[in-house]
Amino acid sequence: MLSQSRALHYGDGVFRTGLLWRSGLVDADLHWRKLRQDAARLQLDAPDDAMLNADAQALHRVHGAGVFKLVLTRRAGGRGYASTQSQTDRLAFWYPLPATGADIWRLGARVRLSDFKLAGSAILAGVKHLNRLEQVLASRDIGDQDELILCGANGALISGTRSNLFIVCNGQLFTPDLSRCGVAGMMREKIMLIAQHLNIPLTVSQISAAALDQADEILLCNALNGIWPVRQVGERQIDAPGPVTQRLAEQLQHPAWYR
Amino acid sequence: MLSQSRALHYGDGVFRTGLLWRSGLVDADLHWRKLRQDAARLQLDAPDDAMLNADAQALHRVHGAGVFKLVLTRRAGGRGYASTQSQTDRLAFWYPLPATGADIWRLGARVRLSDFKLAGSAILAGVKHLNRLEQVLASRDIGDQDELILCGANGALISGTRSNLFIVCNGQLFTPDLSRCGVAGMMREKIMLIAQHLNIPLTVSQISAAALDQADEILLCNALNGIWPVRQVGERQIDAPGPVTQRLAEQLQHPAWYR
Repeated sequence: MLSQSRALHYGDGVFRTGLLWRSGLVDADLHWRKLRQDAARLQLDAPDDAMLNADAQALHRVHGAGVFKLVLTRRAGGRGYASTQSQTDRLAFWYPLPATGADIWRLGARVRLSDFKLAGSAILAGVKHLNRLEQVLASRDIGDQDELILCGANGALISGTRSNLFIVCNGQLFTPDLSRCGVAGMMREKIMLIAQHLNIPLTVSQISAAALDQADEILLCNALNGIWPVRQVGERQIDAPGPVTQRLAEQLQHPAWYR
Repeated sequence: MLSQSRALHYGDGVFRTGLLWRSGLVDADLHWRKLRQDAARLQLDAPDDAMLNADAQALHRVHGAGVFKLVLTRRAGGRGYASTQSQTDRLAFWYPLPATGADIWRLGARVRLSDFKLAGSAILAGVKHLNRLEQVLASRDIGDQDELILCGANGALISGTRSNLFIVCNGQLFTPDLSRCGVAGMMREKIMLIAQHLNIPLTVSQISAAALDQADEILLCNALNGIWPVRQVGERQIDAPGPVTQRLAEQLQHPAWYR
């Protein structure tokens, strides 16, 4: 019964958001690997890939291209936080594609540094879990921006409200360390693999917010959008997409880029 | 539609848990005041007291004494964190009373200091919101203890997993400052008012975990249980209930104490 779901009462679960395109769920394997990793962090059993693929295929068959969301939640059993249950229930959702203008991939996104500070929690850091109030509250100030950049409590860059962040300095790629907070998204991992493949040096580290003023290129990524080049951060204009962003995007061949 | 609830997807809401006793919801006014305060922190509209009382009365009439839970969630409207919606939906639940042995009030609870560290978030601190994964994860290690005591990232005491914490030293009452994390529960506030009424000096401050070794009395509280005296913390035994705890409990006249 959904009204007793531990997702609803506690946010006790994890989720994936992916792109349903012509042939089905883009990067399904990577999604399921991330889902398994995240589920393990919360001591949740993950269904096998065949079951998850069947969920995605069923919605794709009925609705076609769109957004696929899978929620995996600890099975309910009585009131209270404490639970030794590792069995899970799945909820699968389909939504229409976001009404994003195609220009954002060609010309770049407009973003602003938010003064919202994400809380640090080693036990939850990196996990795409259902406790997303910080992202909800941080998103209130988005106004006419395409995305807001968030920092952790110590002022280091973490991510967008719904995307991961990379910056390029002198031909090198940097992405924030997410061992204290943030969501280690599937597309972040994919871009890290692509950078390695293209021999683009990559550093995962603490990055101060001031780096946004000096970066040659800034890019945001998630499973739905692939790569968004950033063309404006606050008052600062940046030529976008820059050469490193372009190389990554060409290798990524994400369907959204070619809409 | 519950499957689209922002409670389920993001934990975007607040809640109250209260005791339905003979005449209805105990301390209803205090619950609704807290609910309004918490709702305001998330920019949510709170229903008026008459509506909330009707929810509680309806469940009380059907099921009798038990646990009342009210979830107030931001009204759904499409996918995504961002929402300018302040309108809310209510979900009301009844559960049987927890099967707690009566001895716990008479003789005291057995607790242990957990090594779980609560994340600090000024924007969410104190609010009884639906992002409760930390409490879920912290509760995993409860074993045969009645409650676990949690600290914040800086090592200062915060609360139990489902209760607020007071300690007594030299006849004075202390309770942790919750401006960085924790839930400022309704019963905590009520005990603070009672202490004032009884002229028991009360300090709200950062309290180091070492205070558990020196406290003359320790007590836990929540809306369901009223006051739990603590008789054992880790290896340390404490005479419980101590004199200050007894004075507070007598003034509180919480039904659970007299079960």
